[in-house]
Amino acid sequence: MREAYVVGAGQSEFGSFPDESYRSLFETAFEATIDSVPAGIDPEEVDEAVVGTLGVGGRQLGLPGPAVTEHVGLHGIPVTRVENACAASGYAVRQGVQAIRSGMADVVLAGGVEVMTDISGDAVRYWLGVSGETEWERLSGTTFAGVYAQMASAHMREYGTTREQLSHVAVKNHENGAKNPHAQLRFECTLEDAMEAPTVADPLTLYHCCPTTDGAAGVLLASEDVVEEYTDDPIRVAGVGAASDRVGLFQRETYSGVPASRKAAETAYERAGVGPEALDFAEVHDCFAIAELMAYADIGLCEPGEAGELVASGATRRDGETPVNTSGGLKSKGHPIGATGAGQVVEAFKQLSGEAGERQVDGAVRGLTHNVGGSGGAAVVHVLEREREVGA
Amino acid sequence: MREAYVVGAGQSEFGSFPDESYRSLFETAFEATIDSVPAGIDPEEVDEAVVGTLGVGGRQLGLPGPAVTEHVGLHGIPVTRVENACAASGYAVRQGVQAIRSGMADVVLAGGVEVMTDISGDAVRYWLGVSGETEWERLSGTTFAGVYAQMASAHMREYGTTREQLSHVAVKNHENGAKNPHAQLRFECTLEDAMEAPTVADPLTLYHCCPTTDGAAGVLLASEDVVEEYTDDPIRVAGVGAASDRVGLFQRETYSGVPASRKAAETAYERAGVGPEALDFAEVHDCFAIAELMAYADIGLCEPGEAGELVASGATRRDGETPVNTSGGLKSKGHPIGATGAGQVVEAFKQLSGEAGERQVDGAVRGLTHNVGGSGGAAVVHVLEREREVGA
Repeated sequence: MREAYVVGAGQSEFGSFPDESYRSLFETAFEATIDSVPAGIDPEEVDEAVVGTLGVGGRQLGLPGPAVTEHVGLHGIPVTRVENACAASGYAVRQGVQAIRSGMADVVLAGGVEVMTDISGDAVRYWLGVSGETEWERLSGTTFAGVYAQMASAHMREYGTTREQLSHVAVKNHENGAKNPHAQLRFECTLEDAMEAPTVADPLTLYHCCPTTDGAAGVLLASEDVVEEYTDDPIRVAGVGAASDRVGLFQRETYSGVPASRKAAETAYERAGVGPEALDFAEVHDCFAIAELMAYADIGLCEPGEAGELVASGATRRDGETPVNTSGGLKSKGHPIGATGAGQVVEAFKQLSGEAGERQVDGAVRGLTHNVGGSGGAAVVHVLEREREVGA
Repeated sequence: MREAYVVGAGQSEFGSFPDESYRSLFETAFEATIDSVPAGIDPEEVDEAVVGTLGVGGRQLGLPGPAVTEHVGLHGIPVTRVENACAASGYAVRQGVQAIRSGMADVVLAGGVEVMTDISGDAVRYWLGVSGETEWERLSGTTFAGVYAQMASAHMREYGTTREQLSHVAVKNHENGAKNPHAQLRFECTLEDAMEAPTVADPLTLYHCCPTTDGAAGVLLASEDVVEEYTDDPIRVAGVGAASDRVGLFQRETYSGVPASRKAAETAYERAGVGPEALDFAEVHDCFAIAELMAYADIGLCEPGEAGELVASGATRRDGETPVNTSGGLKSKGHPIGATGAGQVVEAFKQLSGEAGERQVDGAVRGLTHNVGGSGGAAVVHVLEREREVGA
């Protein structure tokens, strides 16, 4: 199989930017991506682009893929928009990997963009609803937070998970996000802050929910045939896995885990030839605190019943055994739907390049990214691996 | 390069179906696709799915990819929605080819679906507008027909193309569509019908415009490693090409052709190792009659100025030198946005399998499909080739 490498990755700041547009955010991310390539790259060398976006609200441009790539000067190349709700750009990266492995491209830009803060809260709720099941969830009045609240309730009932444990996710991710200059919520919070915040959907409080975010992110992938032109510190896409499931939570085999995540992770590990014990860090999809706890078990960091204890133990803090969401995660870094999956790869690229600044995980050579669409109707996992020895 | 083959393709009827849904139409197409595989296939053998849809109107389901694949029983596999306006499922097929060539899948379902007739004409116009440029075309009041009317006017001015020549496209495609049991407008029309019909956007009359359509289509792709399990009459994806361009017509290098189509065709021919003279038929994107004339030159059937004469000569009729749109094309067969590109491959599969009934092109061994997104912001071309000798 023809290998694919991440040779660059960059993002806009995530946040609320009334003076920015869909295109300008993508441009910022694109420039950061280009600038991140160690040996530099001429944008003319990009063979293909894949753009993930949900197209939240009325801001959606016609042909959003070509609309943003033409804006950054990528003319004429094949451009495809992909959308799998909140996993849009995780799938864009996967599609970029396929394009390279297929031999049809040598250099692919995979990215994502979303503008969400220019519409009302009601409209955001509608568009998040459109990421989940339509007839029996959204149209019956269940909000997206409500779906995850059901998962949290099930997790508590089955495993004894507590609101305090959920709150540890918030504390940890804000601690990390406070150190990330691109994060939306760059401040720390305490356990009490998280536990005593207003309830959004019981048992989830405000601090158990990610914010509404504008932002964009990009990832540059290169084939084994050209990777040396761009870096002498190659980061290989060692494994990719993706899976789907019933879109409606009520139709799935469990409420307290995400089978699609589990399946995607298994495939990615199998292809990478490693297991979760080989990870130096992971960026997981924590749209809600419960989602991070479910991810721990789904990607194999612990058994399903142990996730609450794992986070409370500090094992997933930056200085723990397997740091999770050193970027701040969706919770603190922000969750611009279509940009989130590519944004996770941006953090992984920084960690594996030793460029994560205050958030750097010492000696990181292998990391995982985990991106979920809806409440688990789709999931995609990448295992990324630095080939050069750290410090070499 | 690992070869990809079309081993099955099928579609729902195209038309207006108030009693059908997004899911039921996809199911009909899926069953037809499965049933079309010569040696049969167990749906469990499908490794991955790619679903093209614009999601016209309020009918859009959350996570439309997984939502339709779960409905047909494809559980757990990777499913990605792709959207490039009217080229959504042409790109879905291309992505399926990449998945197979990448070695990440052996059997891929690439399909598309759209429901359009359940919303008002104004809403359809909005959603077609969303396929084109936003700020300077749609928001300034230019309809999608208006954009193509500008292209028709430019073509007439530059090349002397006439309204009668445009009308020959309608006559030919209705003649073919009348023989297609899956076509929406199954009746013939005369030159006078087409020329004297009400004007939609000058110089385009009603007969120069495709209808609004519900429908779905599917294509089953298999790798060279497994193709023999499914057929002893393999149809190879000999070449694939795709290209993007400025989304806004006013920003492109010409009004009287589609540069993205030209580039996509050149790539597809190059990869197939053949040129337009080797084609036995082509399915081209005739959302408006002028689009078919532009396609003739863009895919190399003639020089740009000769397209009007070519259609008037009968060379692209079913019994002509290079039959174009034997299915009836978007004009008569119908244009359910997200299903159109896959629907073109359905016709190509039937022609190359000798299963096109009254529309059969004798001895067809090689055909091309050409699918355009918006007014040319994206285009994708496939060259398909029967490997077995006809009659063997």
